[in-house]
Amino acid sequence: MRNPTAAMLVIGDEILSGRTRDANMHYLAGELTAIGIDLMEVRVVSDVTNSIVTAVNDLRASYDNVFTSGGIGPTHDDITADAIAQAFELSIDVRDDARAILEARYRDMGAEVNKTRLRMARIPDTAVLIDNPVSGAPGFSVKNVHVMAGVPTIFQAMVASVLPTLTGGTPLLSQTLRIDHGEGRVAGPLAKLAGDFPDLSIGSYPFQQNGAYGTNIVIRGQDGPRVDQAMTILAGLFPPKAA
Amino acid sequence: MRNPTAAMLVIGDEILSGRTRDANMHYLAGELTAIGIDLMEVRVVSDVTNSIVTAVNDLRASYDNVFTSGGIGPTHDDITADAIAQAFELSIDVRDDARAILEARYRDMGAEVNKTRLRMARIPDTAVLIDNPVSGAPGFSVKNVHVMAGVPTIFQAMVASVLPTLTGGTPLLSQTLRIDHGEGRVAGPLAKLAGDFPDLSIGSYPFQQNGAYGTNIVIRGQDGPRVDQAMTILAGLFPPKAA
Repeated sequence: MRNPTAAMLVIGDEILSGRTRDANMHYLAGELTAIGIDLMEVRVVSDVTNSIVTAVNDLRASYDNVFTSGGIGPTHDDITADAIAQAFELSIDVRDDARAILEARYRDMGAEVNKTRLRMARIPDTAVLIDNPVSGAPGFSVKNVHVMAGVPTIFQAMVASVLPTLTGGTPLLSQTLRIDHGEGRVAGPLAKLAGDFPDLSIGSYPFQQNGAYGTNIVIRGQDGPRVDQAMTILAGLFPPKAA
Repeated sequence: MRNPTAAMLVIGDEILSGRTRDANMHYLAGELTAIGIDLMEVRVVSDVTNSIVTAVNDLRASYDNVFTSGGIGPTHDDITADAIAQAFELSIDVRDDARAILEARYRDMGAEVNKTRLRMARIPDTAVLIDNPVSGAPGFSVKNVHVMAGVPTIFQAMVASVLPTLTGGTPLLSQTLRIDHGEGRVAGPLAKLAGDFPDLSIGSYPFQQNGAYGTNIVIRGQDGPRVDQAMTILAGLFPPKAA
């Protein structure tokens, strides 16, 4: 049985301009791999409604789960919630359940929910709120699309809220062997090994260190003993060099 | 006149599984911004021919330039060159110009170009080679698609080879102001400022530090004096707190 699939949509001009280095993709990828949901595609788009709508509609039609990050704060450039409503043809307004969360949060801080902060309670009709233990303002899920904040600490907390509600699959197991030869030397035996183990995914990742070439070989699969078996053969082909 | 546009396609299972953190997106974004080419979209797909072909054809039809990273080494999982040939309906085989580069390189290293290494000389018909001063094996450009290695040092060297051949635009200038208030306090005045300067892009990026909320405001535009003018107004609205 195949694993459930997922895509991620990162929303933010600041990533595309090179100002900010995205951190959420790597985090989500690791979390999904651990529970057997296969992340198949990531897209990064700018803070433009049409770009978000098009990407969300493409991805939600193609994959079992879609995770978005970014654009749900209170400022004028936070347009993700409205774009998601448009993608699903849902109405959107300040919702009482989200407003109550914000009011409680700001009361605890001795502040009030001004009109601007209320923007964070704009939630599409029928959406299910995603808990935000870090800063209060919730994310939300509409069908298979999970809409989360871009600030990494909040993104991670929201992922922790959402993942237990999803159907996972068989976690992918992996083992890595570091080989002190470049890919040109490794590629031939590796292709044969990949042919002998069609049920495994065998990846080759070259690197350079102190002027010498090396290759990390990653063997991935859902069946632990098979991964072990392939790794044993590989290690026998490339015994470690003397230090 | 609008700036030329670009998209990036990152090819690699290792990014999507969370094993590797992509470094090339951030680098390319910064380089493009500096020469006035607007990076509009990034996609990350796995090492599957159909995924690569579909993404390349989507992106090259939508943007002026497309940059790919990953999947052009000698191993069985390096399928990018063949996928690009398929996307453009070009034939592909070991090409003499690329073979000559590899032969010279390996001769210098006292090694030979075995059958596996020759895989790196598989180049689509009519493609223009991209110089690789780091490790020899070239990238290539087909029309508006520039195909480069995933290893960051090689990717960066290839970007340096390609960018001078492209038509740039007006570089985007940006200034950042760090404000010691959360977005809820900043959002109202900021929306007014954005309305007064429709020619500028004004972004708001919240952060948390030592338990306090703050916001980085980034003002971007092609006209330096306008960026200065907006930044002066913004700084007057939020004078620094006493330390």
